[in-house]
Amino acid sequence: MLGLMQHQPLLISSLLEHACVSHPDAQIVSRTVEGPIHRCSYADIGRRAKQVANAMTTLGVQPGERIGTLAWNGYRHMELYFGVSGMGAVLHTINPRLFPEQIEFIANHADDQYLFFDLSFAALVEELAPKLPTVKAFIALCDRAHMPDIKVANLRCYEELIVEQPEQFDWPLLDENSASSMCYTSGTTGNPKGVLYSHRSSLLHSLMSCTSEGFALSAADAALLVVPMFHVNAWGMPYAGALCGAKLVLPGPALDGASLYQLMRDERVTLALGVPTVWMMLQQHAEAGGLNPRDELCLNRVVIGGAAAPRAVVECFERHFDARVMHAWGMTEMSPLGTVCHPLPKHANASLEQRLDLQAKQGRALFGVSMKITDGAGNDLPRDGRAFGHLLVKGPWIASSYFRGEGGPILDQDGWFDTGDIATIDPDGYMQITDRAKDVIKSGGEWISSIDLENAAVGHPAVAEAAVIGIAHPKWQERPLLVVVLKAGQAASREELLGFLGDKVARWWLPDDVVFVDELPHTATGKLQKLKLREQFRDYRFAE
Amino acid sequence: MLGLMQHQPLLISSLLEHACVSHPDAQIVSRTVEGPIHRCSYADIGRRAKQVANAMTTLGVQPGERIGTLAWNGYRHMELYFGVSGMGAVLHTINPRLFPEQIEFIANHADDQYLFFDLSFAALVEELAPKLPTVKAFIALCDRAHMPDIKVANLRCYEELIVEQPEQFDWPLLDENSASSMCYTSGTTGNPKGVLYSHRSSLLHSLMSCTSEGFALSAADAALLVVPMFHVNAWGMPYAGALCGAKLVLPGPALDGASLYQLMRDERVTLALGVPTVWMMLQQHAEAGGLNPRDELCLNRVVIGGAAAPRAVVECFERHFDARVMHAWGMTEMSPLGTVCHPLPKHANASLEQRLDLQAKQGRALFGVSMKITDGAGNDLPRDGRAFGHLLVKGPWIASSYFRGEGGPILDQDGWFDTGDIATIDPDGYMQITDRAKDVIKSGGEWISSIDLENAAVGHPAVAEAAVIGIAHPKWQERPLLVVVLKAGQAASREELLGFLGDKVARWWLPDDVVFVDELPHTATGKLQKLKLREQFRDYRFAE
Repeated sequence: MLGLMQHQPLLISSLLEHACVSHPDAQIVSRTVEGPIHRCSYADIGRRAKQVANAMTTLGVQPGERIGTLAWNGYRHMELYFGVSGMGAVLHTINPRLFPEQIEFIANHADDQYLFFDLSFAALVEELAPKLPTVKAFIALCDRAHMPDIKVANLRCYEELIVEQPEQFDWPLLDENSASSMCYTSGTTGNPKGVLYSHRSSLLHSLMSCTSEGFALSAADAALLVVPMFHVNAWGMPYAGALCGAKLVLPGPALDGASLYQLMRDERVTLALGVPTVWMMLQQHAEAGGLNPRDELCLNRVVIGGAAAPRAVVECFERHFDARVMHAWGMTEMSPLGTVCHPLPKHANASLEQRLDLQAKQGRALFGVSMKITDGAGNDLPRDGRAFGHLLVKGPWIASSYFRGEGGPILDQDGWFDTGDIATIDPDGYMQITDRAKDVIKSGGEWISSIDLENAAVGHPAVAEAAVIGIAHPKWQERPLLVVVLKAGQAASREELLGFLGDKVARWWLPDDVVFVDELPHTATGKLQKLKLREQFRDYRFAE
Repeated sequence: MLGLMQHQPLLISSLLEHACVSHPDAQIVSRTVEGPIHRCSYADIGRRAKQVANAMTTLGVQPGERIGTLAWNGYRHMELYFGVSGMGAVLHTINPRLFPEQIEFIANHADDQYLFFDLSFAALVEELAPKLPTVKAFIALCDRAHMPDIKVANLRCYEELIVEQPEQFDWPLLDENSASSMCYTSGTTGNPKGVLYSHRSSLLHSLMSCTSEGFALSAADAALLVVPMFHVNAWGMPYAGALCGAKLVLPGPALDGASLYQLMRDERVTLALGVPTVWMMLQQHAEAGGLNPRDELCLNRVVIGGAAAPRAVVECFERHFDARVMHAWGMTEMSPLGTVCHPLPKHANASLEQRLDLQAKQGRALFGVSMKITDGAGNDLPRDGRAFGHLLVKGPWIASSYFRGEGGPILDQDGWFDTGDIATIDPDGYMQITDRAKDVIKSGGEWISSIDLENAAVGHPAVAEAAVIGIAHPKWQERPLLVVVLKAGQAASREELLGFLGDKVARWWLPDDVVFVDELPHTATGKLQKLKLREQFRDYRFAE
């Protein structure tokens, strides 16, 4: 027997409609590519998103067609978020930091019909345009006066495109499972793969962001979105903002410490979201300038995702900014939120050290995200905070497959998605990533965390950087090899380092050997490339 | 084109599963009918709800069948909330305060298969049992030692029923639109009508309760549910608690000021929810006993619904309890939440008086609830805070029809549900009820609010109570008649009262006459019965 409740689909357009009637005056503040700060309201975004929808209709865009963007965080990008998805097309946000060949691949794979771009990417668009046959026009996100001088056949001006359009548009009553937006994962192996979000998944994800288990976002917040709108919908924040009426502060291309600090101060930012790197730059800026963020800012919480933040960053926010760090963990395939790290009432009397230990964890699963860890054979492991295994997830905002079925089926027979991470879960549900599955060392049927060993090794005063990889072993399957870069002018022997690790990790975890190198391989964004390191040491064998 | 996200239904069982892994130790504290305080955790509720589901299965209960309850707020009732709905049956909570004939009508109309009851209602069940042919057994919510001595053929003991059942149960993967629970409206005219909630509507409603726009419920809260679990699922709080891990405090049958105050103090209650009457009793208890709630309690917010709270109640919570009142407005047909009254950031510097004015309003619509006001001809009225009209609502947790189609279609052609209220909406979206549609006075094509006139009249020092009704008028259609009860030993003339109102309402709102009576008709719960008053004055005509 079915309930007798109204059938109303969960649609992205309904978020904006709600914003326009419930908190029309709440602000969107953008640092523009052109330079000045721009201010508008949700009501303004509401009107202009409808103009975007009318423009899309005039251009002949059909429901389900992909519309690409190469853009920073700004109000025009936000208008596209609602205008494009709202009218039934799919907003395909492209990461402009990818190599041009990757962008070419992605835009063609997605069959993008139009491409909107910020002026920062004019030269990139000029280079790419001839290689993107499906794109009918390239639309610069600016007014006529700022149009770039580039040779692109179908170049259009955003403000001209929408200015003549009516401010009335009836948002279609779409199936809530319709595709709303798309983001490609920048996989380290193979081609990028597209994750296709739905209106339903985006709405449920936004609702959870606004709960106390998520970010507790509210109309009292001014939220600085350093996390880019080209990356998993800026963690869903533009939608969540519209839901609750939070002021949104969009930093455009200026992500340096000084620019962010200024925005935080001038716009009375209470909540900021981003990856660890930007926070390190912000803290360095504050320290170098002898600033007093405790008095000058009203920041009260910082959401850090993308990677675990060093303890020093968390502690600096506590001590000098009077702001609480919440780690959040997720993936492009997860919309992205899986866990957020909040203390529980029983932690109320924890010391700062205990709290920092807790805050180092990735956190507890949001309602909607089921999470479990399994051993190599697929058996469930206990939630005891010690056992670590493959982290699997399930939920209504988690991908069921990639766009065009790339990579084949991605769920197991019970519907679980393998995150590729190795993690522990404690009895309170706090999850902590201990390694990537491909990096964990399998020794004698047990696992050794490469990350734990590396963290222990960099504790030695002479070690600048350390990496641990598994080396094939006739008896144990794999054994750990420690690869070390020493600090300039420092020295340490193999024996000294092994001795140093001796009381920090289990005896059987101790690396079988230590190799000293001048540098370790990194990606352009500074991430250690273990794949390359393993290739480098493919023929290495431990002495008998 | 559909998104590529996992299909996972929104189910009530998933709330409990989440609670059991994410905050298993959070507490449910109940004052029992038997007397003592009972403590358990969400993990305990999780185990016992599965025993309930197994017991239901053993008893042959089929998906969609209705299971009745006559029970106070307590942990066993909560086990039924999750166990019965979770296994696919429909939890039908019955208001034990209704007349026995109404309960008989409701249980028979719902076709209830089993009836669970608290010991308080043993005599009632003994009286009703012979008249409820569909009920296969009457299950007392107690252990063997407390079984009531009543003559009921199929009397069972709850603890005996579930104790032998396994603690394992695989919650079925139901269609999220399946019926989960049911509550009858106690309409003032005609028979009660059943509202049938779905898993989806209950889940979306719970999610919104946990956002900042709702009650911002969190794991840091201890929530006292004075609103009964037999009335619209206690405003959805048992579900919302499981979602976020709030401690729930369930007061059982003891709703007097002293008992509630004691629970608030002993259980460190931060949030309390109920109707105005209980708060008046609580405040009287605190005042009479010379208590100091500011120091003794840690209450920080009070949600008041069911009726508008007198300003004095709101102010008393502010001044003496240091707690902020939030009005919430809704209906049985709305699951029930429609609006919650929160201040916006721009009200941060409001004076206490200004804030109390704001808090008197019913609040802004939650995301999901669309709201509009229309005139008698169905035309939309402006959201200017002055125009008042029929309040219509729409949304995924609002009824589409009553159980068994009673009362016929209840939505207009665009899907709007008429709340029967007359309201204003201001430019910020704050809604304020000005009257019931059947009470508003239609004069010369315009409307006069009976409530506004009554509120103005009771401002006169000699007036104990006032009611305003519309009297048929040859020229104006209707004109207001003021019916007044004077305070004992006080006097006031027709002219004096009309003069008193002269500078308080618009000239054309002034009643055409004043009638003095000894008493006004009330319901058993003290509500003014305007229908009866109108009948009383059916033949009244104004002098020419």
